[in-house]
Amino acid sequence: MAYEFKIVRDVQWSDTDMAGIMHFSNFFRFMEAAEHAFFRSLGFSIHTTQPERVGWPRVHADCDFSHPLRFEDSVEVHLLVRRKTEKSLVYSFIFRKLNGDAPREVARGSLAVACVKRDEEGRLKGVPIPREIADRIEVAPE
Amino acid sequence: MAYEFKIVRDVQWSDTDMAGIMHFSNFFRFMEAAEHAFFRSLGFSIHTTQPERVGWPRVHADCDFSHPLRFEDSVEVHLLVRRKTEKSLVYSFIFRKLNGDAPREVARGSLAVACVKRDEEGRLKGVPIPREIADRIEVAPE
Amino acid sequence: MAYEFKIVRDVQWSDTDMAGIMHFSNFFRFMEAAEHAFFRSLGFSIHTTQPERVGWPRVHADCDFSHPLRFEDSVEVHLLVRRKTEKSLVYSFIFRKLNGDAPREVARGSLAVACVKRDEEGRLKGVPIPREIADRIEVAPE
Amino acid sequence: MAYEFKIVRDVQWSDTDMAGIMHFSNFFRFMEAAEHAFFRSLGFSIHTTQPERVGWPRVHADCDFSHPLRFEDSVEVHLLVRRKTEKSLVYSFIFRKLNGDAPREVARGSLAVACVKRDEEGRLKGVPIPREIADRIEVAPE
Repeated sequence: MAYEFKIVRDVQWSDTDMAGIMHFSNFFRFMEAAEHAFFRSLGFSIHTTQPERVGWPRVHADCDFSHPLRFEDSVEVHLLVRRKTEKSLVYSFIFRKLNGDAPREVARGSLAVACVKRDEEGRLKGVPIPREIADRIEVAPE
Repeated sequence: MAYEFKIVRDVQWSDTDMAGIMHFSNFFRFMEAAEHAFFRSLGFSIHTTQPERVGWPRVHADCDFSHPLRFEDSVEVHLLVRRKTEKSLVYSFIFRKLNGDAPREVARGSLAVACVKRDEEGRLKGVPIPREIADRIEVAPE
Repeated sequence: MAYEFKIVRDVQWSDTDMAGIMHFSNFFRFMEAAEHAFFRSLGFSIHTTQPERVGWPRVHADCDFSHPLRFEDSVEVHLLVRRKTEKSLVYSFIFRKLNGDAPREVARGSLAVACVKRDEEGRLKGVPIPREIADRIEVAPE
Repeated sequence: MAYEFKIVRDVQWSDTDMAGIMHFSNFFRFMEAAEHAFFRSLGFSIHTTQPERVGWPRVHADCDFSHPLRFEDSVEVHLLVRRKTEKSLVYSFIFRKLNGDAPREVARGSLAVACVKRDEEGRLKGVPIPREIADRIEVAPE
């Protein structure tokens, strides 16, 4: 069972905006990249090899920004499982800039995702997290 | 004085992801587009024609998603000023899908932004919102 | 029958990069937005309401950049049909910045797209452009 | 002296579109990522540590797409220097999908970039490639 995962990403030119810093929307893309890497670390692809082919639409996303990221900064995205219910998961994320004098926290956020399937008419419907997945995920200790 | 603004945006193909819906990070881009259009409605550009050339880095962003947006959906982004302090603003945003049987709320979010200037070493420092701007903005009634 | 279409787009903050100009990859997104708007002008959605549910993957894309676009610039994207074969279309695009002293060409590009369907195994296969679509599109005069 | 460089990138969920494949505009972002990594391999950052603080705006970009890339595909981007003039460089790029039965070419493109500086009025002006950079770059053999 696992409750955390870390990825490292480098800020690309196309991640920046005219203020010379990473555009804030890209922090959310990095959170999602960590979430998908976490799933791969459990042996699943969020897309193709999941039991029962469930999907994980976002229900909530937030981020608090304390320091900017710049081009070529290297950032660790640390995912922690914060909540696990029958049909949903909540992750928190800590962003740490790794280059520079010392690793430094630059942002902190969270994602809440629902486990869903499409019904016959194509509508998304909440379903229990498949047992094979739920059994691999636990909530991080405080 | 103004406390709200609305823009309408159409979901482009490049806004979608492989789930067939608008990628959640783009809701944050739409919020920012509404914020900048709000500033233009007050007679300022967020970038070039602001008194004192202040900047507005994001301090916090969040969004709750209730229904997906799809390619070619038309969405109204309704900005409301929720808080105004000496050095910051908080906006809330309501997303309403305009096409379909009836307008329908699909998401709700907020942005908190700080008013900053660069000091001589290029570091961002919080400063009071320039009077000409602050005088044009008021908090929306509940 | 139609051989051209024009859309106008405003450059958003999130379209820019740290050089203070629109990131070059976004010119391609604007081309595609013009292509899809052209289809809507013919009475089709590129996605949902096309005869025979064909798809239009990109086979080739190019762009020549002569002047930068900046935040809040307004740009006209002028699509022209350059070639029409049984199974493909080639569009050219002229980008003109509308604000400033006088409209000015800033870039010029093209897209070649193939008309495809998925076969039973999900592979894309070139197919003739459905008659209802082909009948609405003609090649622009030189 | 160097004339080539390779990077490997994994296709992220946010790189895909509703056709279930990587959006074509992102191939251009991957080309640029390879270009910047090539510069780092020479000991320069394209941004901060370049002699004379020159910039490299794109003058031309093109790509031919032969096979789609999908979520979680791993792609090698192989940069080759194709032309070097006093004030410009032309790179070609070969995209090879690494996962699956065997590496497979999926796309091929090029970027032409100009070496520029800002004059006193902020306008970009073509300048000779700084000697320290030009001396490190050679054209790939045919």
